[in-house]
Amino acid sequence: MKLSTYIHNKRTQWGVVAIDGTFVSAETVPGAPSTMEEHIETQNPDVVAGLLAAEQKGGGVSQSDISWCPPLRRPSKIIGVAINNKMGQKVAFRPFADPAFFFKPSSSLIGHGEPVIIKRSYGITHPEPELAVIIGRGGSAIPENEALSHVFGYSVINDVTSPGLKERDSIELVATSKGGGGAYGKLLQWRNVRDEDHARSNYLTYHARSKGTDTFGPMGPWIVTADEVPDPNVLPINSFDDETPAFIDSTANLTFTVQRVIAHASAYMTLLPGDIIHCGTSMQPAPGGQFRGLTDWDLQHTDGRSMNITIEGIGTLSNPVVLVEDNQ
Amino acid sequence: MKLSTYIHNKRTQWGVVAIDGTFVSAETVPGAPSTMEEHIETQNPDVVAGLLAAEQKGGGVSQSDISWCPPLRRPSKIIGVAINNKMGQKVAFRPFADPAFFFKPSSSLIGHGEPVIIKRSYGITHPEPELAVIIGRGGSAIPENEALSHVFGYSVINDVTSPGLKERDSIELVATSKGGGGAYGKLLQWRNVRDEDHARSNYLTYHARSKGTDTFGPMGPWIVTADEVPDPNVLPINSFDDETPAFIDSTANLTFTVQRVIAHASAYMTLLPGDIIHCGTSMQPAPGGQFRGLTDWDLQHTDGRSMNITIEGIGTLSNPVVLVEDNQ
Repeated sequence: MKLSTYIHNKRTQWGVVAIDGTFVSAETVPGAPSTMEEHIETQNPDVVAGLLAAEQKGGGVSQSDISWCPPLRRPSKIIGVAINNKMGQKVAFRPFADPAFFFKPSSSLIGHGEPVIIKRSYGITHPEPELAVIIGRGGSAIPENEALSHVFGYSVINDVTSPGLKERDSIELVATSKGGGGAYGKLLQWRNVRDEDHARSNYLTYHARSKGTDTFGPMGPWIVTADEVPDPNVLPINSFDDETPAFIDSTANLTFTVQRVIAHASAYMTLLPGDIIHCGTSMQPAPGGQFRGLTDWDLQHTDGRSMNITIEGIGTLSNPVVLVEDNQ
Repeated sequence: MKLSTYIHNKRTQWGVVAIDGTFVSAETVPGAPSTMEEHIETQNPDVVAGLLAAEQKGGGVSQSDISWCPPLRRPSKIIGVAINNKMGQKVAFRPFADPAFFFKPSSSLIGHGEPVIIKRSYGITHPEPELAVIIGRGGSAIPENEALSHVFGYSVINDVTSPGLKERDSIELVATSKGGGGAYGKLLQWRNVRDEDHARSNYLTYHARSKGTDTFGPMGPWIVTADEVPDPNVLPINSFDDETPAFIDSTANLTFTVQRVIAHASAYMTLLPGDIIHCGTSMQPAPGGQFRGLTDWDLQHTDGRSMNITIEGIGTLSNPVVLVEDNQ
């Protein structure tokens, strides 16, 4: 099933995308809760049966009469996985042994079709086309071989990221005594920084602004329930700058599989129903394309164009870029 | 007023700490919503008046009969400010021009008195004693001179941080062409990395695990409403390893003031009622104390002892450390 959250007649609703292409509100399903968040928590079998019947029956509202919301609007957390692509590992001097995580805030989420606002002052800002996993059954220390049974469904997310803002949120630390005593000596020790010169290039980078700014989290258009995705690790994920191929990739190129990512995250952070984990960017350049790397797809230069991301078996997420001259 | 969330007779409630020291449940206040989160959103004047009356009247349950929850359990976001202390800026070769942010997940929150679980495998892990700001009225692009009017109240937070985990969530990037073409050339260019050697020590650090692991967010014991804190930028904040002074600091030593932090965060990320911003760690060593820096207060060596953090005018947050031998 495809489940979406949308606005129709100025009212926010959730419902199922029927086989006739219309949107049938969950309000027509007896006993359905008022939000998809609650449905994910409860997963009442009668409601599931009602949604399946509505999917077959159709006769809802037309796609042209709705505007899209992100499928979930206030998950307890949105966990991203850093550089989780076999191509990304190639440029690492010391690759990650385990998935490394960051967070996006729910305030960054927008729906399919909503504009991503890029201000001139942000500097380089690029899309990151990714598979989003929506947790159905929460838990901690989830074993890898049980991880997929905790998944409610899958969606498409665009992890918009601004290296321009990231640079400004990076700090260079000075070693005061060549890695010797004191707090900062220790800080450098655990980074294996052994001389003053290296210490000078020793950054700490903070990612909240560069990944969490408003509109930096397009997601949708819907959630496809997990029963329709037998293996999330073999999904082609292709992205386009308007119609021009940008990155042609697959979740098969993730360094760490979806189940490994879920298991590792839950070993440290208790997962709750509705939590979102996006599994790592696609970054394999389209053959003959103009972008050799993600930062080449600089949204500072794509005002009015759309980022289009298709994951096979899930759907296509499209969002126009709107550039704002803020003269900073 | 001091507002807390607590468990009494196995039921989670919120209420006011009365002048007689007892806890009066909001259930005794006509019209009060069922969670403090909802109260912060609505701030119904009749409910406020009812809470004020209950504060005077007292006669609630005794502190010894309750267990503490974090005052808020599922804020939409928890924003931390990196190295926001004048002492921290001294070790920066290129200090931050603006506050830099990271996130903690709500799943990391625990209440006053609850244990912080430190596993042997985490490596160095230390407390960070901080002022927490709770947003009352949301907004974006909030001007600095209006920022404090958006604050509902203040609390104490312990931003437990693990440099041991942080090290493992850091990646060294290799410059493939001395900062030249391609995505990673650009990545290094914006970091001003100009030669191969510097590039080798060029880290990207991700903070989710090192700051977001379960129990890494002790908060409380309560929220003091903003009317009782005329200036959040002059509050002594002192911390103790059991009874031994560890760091003796003040919010006057924050590099960026509370209102500057709120304004800058809201310029990028829309703030919602109940959002928490913790404003930066205290880190001035207690005179004659045993800790010269935060990493010296390594919780790997304080099993069974308590972290006690007092902010004058707010309260004291105490949490015992429990070490788990996980043999990794």
